[in-house]
Amino acid sequence: MSSMSIAPKLIDTDVHNSMADRKDLLPYLPKAWHQQWMEYGYGMEGSKTWSPVGVLRKDAVPDNGGTVASDPYFVLKDHIYKYGIDYAILTGTPYMNAISLCYDPDYGNVLASALNDWTVETWLKASPHYKGSIHVNHSDPAAAVKEIERMAGHKDMVQIIMCSAARVPYGQRFYHPIYEAAERHGLPVAVHPGLEGLGPTYPPTPSGYPTRFMEWENVLPLNFMTHVNSLVCEGVFEKFPAFKFVAIEGGVSWLPHLMWRMDKNYKALRDTVPWLKRLPSEYIKEHIRLTTQPIEEPVSPEHLVQIYKMSGAEDVVMYSSDYAHWDYDPPKVALAPFPREMREKIGAGNAMELYGLKEAVSTTV
Amino acid sequence: MSSMSIAPKLIDTDVHNSMADRKDLLPYLPKAWHQQWMEYGYGMEGSKTWSPVGVLRKDAVPDNGGTVASDPYFVLKDHIYKYGIDYAILTGTPYMNAISLCYDPDYGNVLASALNDWTVETWLKASPHYKGSIHVNHSDPAAAVKEIERMAGHKDMVQIIMCSAARVPYGQRFYHPIYEAAERHGLPVAVHPGLEGLGPTYPPTPSGYPTRFMEWENVLPLNFMTHVNSLVCEGVFEKFPAFKFVAIEGGVSWLPHLMWRMDKNYKALRDTVPWLKRLPSEYIKEHIRLTTQPIEEPVSPEHLVQIYKMSGAEDVVMYSSDYAHWDYDPPKVALAPFPREMREKIGAGNAMELYGLKEAVSTTV
Repeated sequence: MSSMSIAPKLIDTDVHNSMADRKDLLPYLPKAWHQQWMEYGYGMEGSKTWSPVGVLRKDAVPDNGGTVASDPYFVLKDHIYKYGIDYAILTGTPYMNAISLCYDPDYGNVLASALNDWTVETWLKASPHYKGSIHVNHSDPAAAVKEIERMAGHKDMVQIIMCSAARVPYGQRFYHPIYEAAERHGLPVAVHPGLEGLGPTYPPTPSGYPTRFMEWENVLPLNFMTHVNSLVCEGVFEKFPAFKFVAIEGGVSWLPHLMWRMDKNYKALRDTVPWLKRLPSEYIKEHIRLTTQPIEEPVSPEHLVQIYKMSGAEDVVMYSSDYAHWDYDPPKVALAPFPREMREKIGAGNAMELYGLKEAVSTTV
Repeated sequence: MSSMSIAPKLIDTDVHNSMADRKDLLPYLPKAWHQQWMEYGYGMEGSKTWSPVGVLRKDAVPDNGGTVASDPYFVLKDHIYKYGIDYAILTGTPYMNAISLCYDPDYGNVLASALNDWTVETWLKASPHYKGSIHVNHSDPAAAVKEIERMAGHKDMVQIIMCSAARVPYGQRFYHPIYEAAERHGLPVAVHPGLEGLGPTYPPTPSGYPTRFMEWENVLPLNFMTHVNSLVCEGVFEKFPAFKFVAIEGGVSWLPHLMWRMDKNYKALRDTVPWLKRLPSEYIKEHIRLTTQPIEEPVSPEHLVQIYKMSGAEDVVMYSSDYAHWDYDPPKVALAPFPREMREKIGAGNAMELYGLKEAVSTTV
């Protein structure tokens, strides 16, 4: 980097990159698994509910046709250059994130490795604006640790990613080896909404299944509240003091409610969580990061600013577009409600800190 | 009532009344069920998690000893008279509310009837300050309707009560006969946190089971968000326009987040809920009522007032003490954060309207 380097002004923390064709993964997948992959895929294509507007932007089809968000050069043109985005954190697709839900853990493990190699070759080599997420299979923590060891040295891999759908809340000990490895390599672990209620998971609500896509979208954050609460209560952030957890696309404005409730109960019940040394809300502010999309849109935008201020969200939330999903937010939509200083932190500052992306890509060298 | 009648100043919408001994129910229970009741009780005593402070106030034991909140005259002295409460809405115990979770619906049905008769004889006859809730077994809606028909005529029964734990979200058609009967009799349906994760229900979070009592208490409102969302999305309030639903003890400050998310998704996806004629948040404000306890306690009380104002909560929230549970709120604690006009609505006005309790108990006649 030259001495003329400047700081990034805009970092997008949730850009989906998909695969044009199942065949594209074959070069990275051991031959023994080719038949299963070609016939069975992720094993859970399909969805609980149906969206009449689709789940992908209909205007984001690559120039050469085919799968939305499958062409790294089209995404550069259609999103990265268009909005002056310094870095796009690639998050794969929800199905890629959901490889932890394969009934066969060996299958989830080989898919994780293949997806990571495919990401490096197809996307990270295409542009320095792309940064990658390491896919792991959380249902086999020892294998997940091996995959982290294999990939963490890649300079453009900036985090580990898993689906938010899980059979055990994310604070519990089962997952701690993954967090130990993540902390050791200075990588955050991110979760993305991933097919709650499909595969070997529980229903998406404590009372079972919502009826329609809208109803499901409305309560998707329940699982994020579950994981944030579990991570704090189980003492993950005392055990791994440098560890950070990124809750992508799970909402933000529930923070005051959850923080107040956790802090109040802590005062009465801290005997039962003796490993905690501070108020639960303090662990959230230091260790949890959230993303903006879908940005919450009260009639009065100042209500959103009030919520952010009362929960310290300006220091924990990072801009995300969710490109190229149906409810995609371009930067000007997501950042509009916030006053300038908050906009700078949310637009780039918080992600710069988290991912160590202190210098923008040089365009003059 | 005399022409000197005055309006109530304080209504407590969640006062638990328990039973001193299982034998107390026998006079109201058909003999065929006596053995099961005496040997088996509600069938799910016990709890997922353990609280070191207990779940009942240790200082609320009746003068004659025995079960907390089992003596109507002691509760009058210990709570109603002490704080000048005009009306206490009796809500039974969580186990009573959870009779909808009996594996055998016939057993749930006879327990509902016996509990209602016991409530009338033991509690409602003890003082005009007590108002009752009709227990129903929601897993047998036709039987629940019969029980509503049997009890709705009692002048001191002011609502129907069920547990929040359920196998189907509360908006779905399975339950509509209950709401039709409730609307016809002008009775709201209330839910109280009830043993989520016990009996034939799903786990209390979309990722399974929390580890400890504190962690569970922190995310208990997830199921309330689930039900409120379901009731609105399924069109219950268009189908039953006079029907009201009371979410007891499920938190309040999640309202802005859920309302904004529902309203935003409605704008994109209303094709899928064509029965809705207004924004989802408008149905919540008109048809859902919530209760204060456990009152949320941010470091700055004005943050709670901000949340109430931005969600219209001042018109939907009602004071509740949760007597005699461990985290009981006396009126001065729950109402302290609010400016005068809000305090009057939350302390009595909203409950007066909902339950039709326009006149305080006359103490001079």
